[in-house]
Formats: sequence, C-alpha cells, structure tokens
Amino acid sequence: MVPSLPSDPSPDAIAVLGANAAFYEAFESRDLDTMSDIWEHSDRVGCVHPGWAILTGWASVSASWFALFDGPQRLQFIVTDERVEVAGDVAWVTCNENLLDTGATQAVAATNVFTRADVGWRLVHHHGSPVEQRMQAREQ
Amino acid sequence: MVPSLPSDPSPDAIAVLGANAAFYEAFESRDLDTMSDIWEHSDRVGCVHPGWAILTGWASVSASWFALFDGPQRLQFIVTDERVEVAGDVAWVTCNENLLDTGATQAVAATNVFTRADVGWRLVHHHGSPVEQRMQAREQ
Repeated sequence: MVPSLPSDPSPDAIAVLGANAAFYEAFESRDLDTMSDIWEHSDRVGCVHPGWAILTGWASVSASWFALFDGPQRLQFIVTDERVEVAGDVAWVTCNENLLDTGATQAVAATNVFTRADVGWRLVHHHGSPVEQRMQAREQ
Repeated sequence: MVPSLPSDPSPDAIAVLGANAAFYEAFESRDLDTMSDIWEHSDRVGCVHPGWAILTGWASVSASWFALFDGPQRLQFIVTDERVEVAGDVAWVTCNENLLDTGATQAVAATNVFTRADVGWRLVHHHGSPVEQRMQAREQ
C-alpha cells in the first residue's frame, strides 16, 4: 500500500503517513500486537468503527480490535485519497478505505488523529463511517 | 445546551467546548454566517456528514452547509458525552449528537478537530456517523 504523498511532504507528514499505512497493514493482517503498538495506551484514545458508538480509553478500544480480529470477517482495503495535516505535536489524516468484499466495493470515510511520542507518531483517535452508495456516485 | 465539562477543565478545554457548543447552536439554528465564523477558511478543512464522502477545502465544506441549511430537514440535537483533549494548538472533541426526529431518537457519533487561531478556536474537521440502533443498545 503506497501512501499518496503530497507534492512536497515534510518529514513529519511522511512519518505520519507511514504510521497511517502501518495501521491499515495491521488491520488487514489482523495483527493485534502491531495494532497495539500503533495506538497510544491512555484514557484519551477514542475509536468509532463504522456504525458503532464511540469507544473511549485503551481498554475499550483494544477490546474492540480483539473482537474484530477474532471474528469471521477478514477485511482487505485499498486506501485512497490520503491527506495529512501536521500542527505541532498533533496530526490528522483523512482517507477512504475501499473495502474489497464479495465483488462489490464499499467505501468507508476515515479520520485518524495521531500525536507525537518519543517513539514516533501514535494513533489517539480513529473514526470510520460508511459512505452511502449514492454519495460515492455523487463524488465521482 | 450546556457542555458536560470535565471535573477540572483547563481554560483551553472550556474554550474548545464553547466552540463546540457554538457549532451545534449554528447547526440547529441553520445560521450560515455563524457556521462560517466557526470554521477555519482554508484548503485543509475537512467534513464528513453522516453517510457522505469526505469533503475537503472550505469551498466544498461551506457549500455543504449551504445545501443542508437550504433543505427541508430541520435538525434538533441533544449533545451528550462530550470529551475534549487539548494538545498544544490542536484540540479534538468527541460527542454524541442525539437527533430529535419524529418521535425516534437517532444518534450520530461525532469527532470535531479545532485549531487555535488569533481569534479563538476554529473548527478544521468534522466527522459525523450514524450509530446503528443495535450498537446504541449495546452501549447502554
């Protein structure tokens, strides 16, 4: 999965897009250890899976990934339209998760917020939401 | 609409929650001028309405508010479960938008990202997504 870099990305922007790509690679491969490393482990983290209510705190967020990875549904993505903004020690990425599933492609709009840590950029908030087919058609 | 403040909020957290409340007041009252003042006017702003694809840039985002406020649907909210995090000049709020509509209550999970400007905190990203009824039931 190659991030769509801006024309003149800053080192911070490149690092954040790398963290974003690692998130989707861990998601696709159902790699709970790597997914755990990608997130900040704190009470302030939050996660909204498509159609879900907001989960807050690492205990709830990590439990949701465990449940998703333990379930039957294996997801494959093509991530497109990545945009990254860095402001100090916070960055946010928007992208489309194009789910490859049973012949039809379903899009999920995602917002991912990262903060700078000693060990690199860590995910503190993920929000994914299904894009209705008619809205996908309108955008194309 | 009274924001649910943390037990010992910082001045920044109070200011961000005020900006978040102003956003929902402008939304409810379909006040395009106030909505415009709440947002940063730049290429980096982004907005995901429930079920919509990602809109980027102030031109697209402002056009979406114009279209929503020009339409027939008048929305009333009760905003609950507000949580705010401030990191330097960036803050993000999560909350539930409980839509009062024809007897049934529908919840939208929202992520709002603000940045500090000379004139106060400005909205740079809004992401709202419908919460499925069965997930609302699970959370309660």
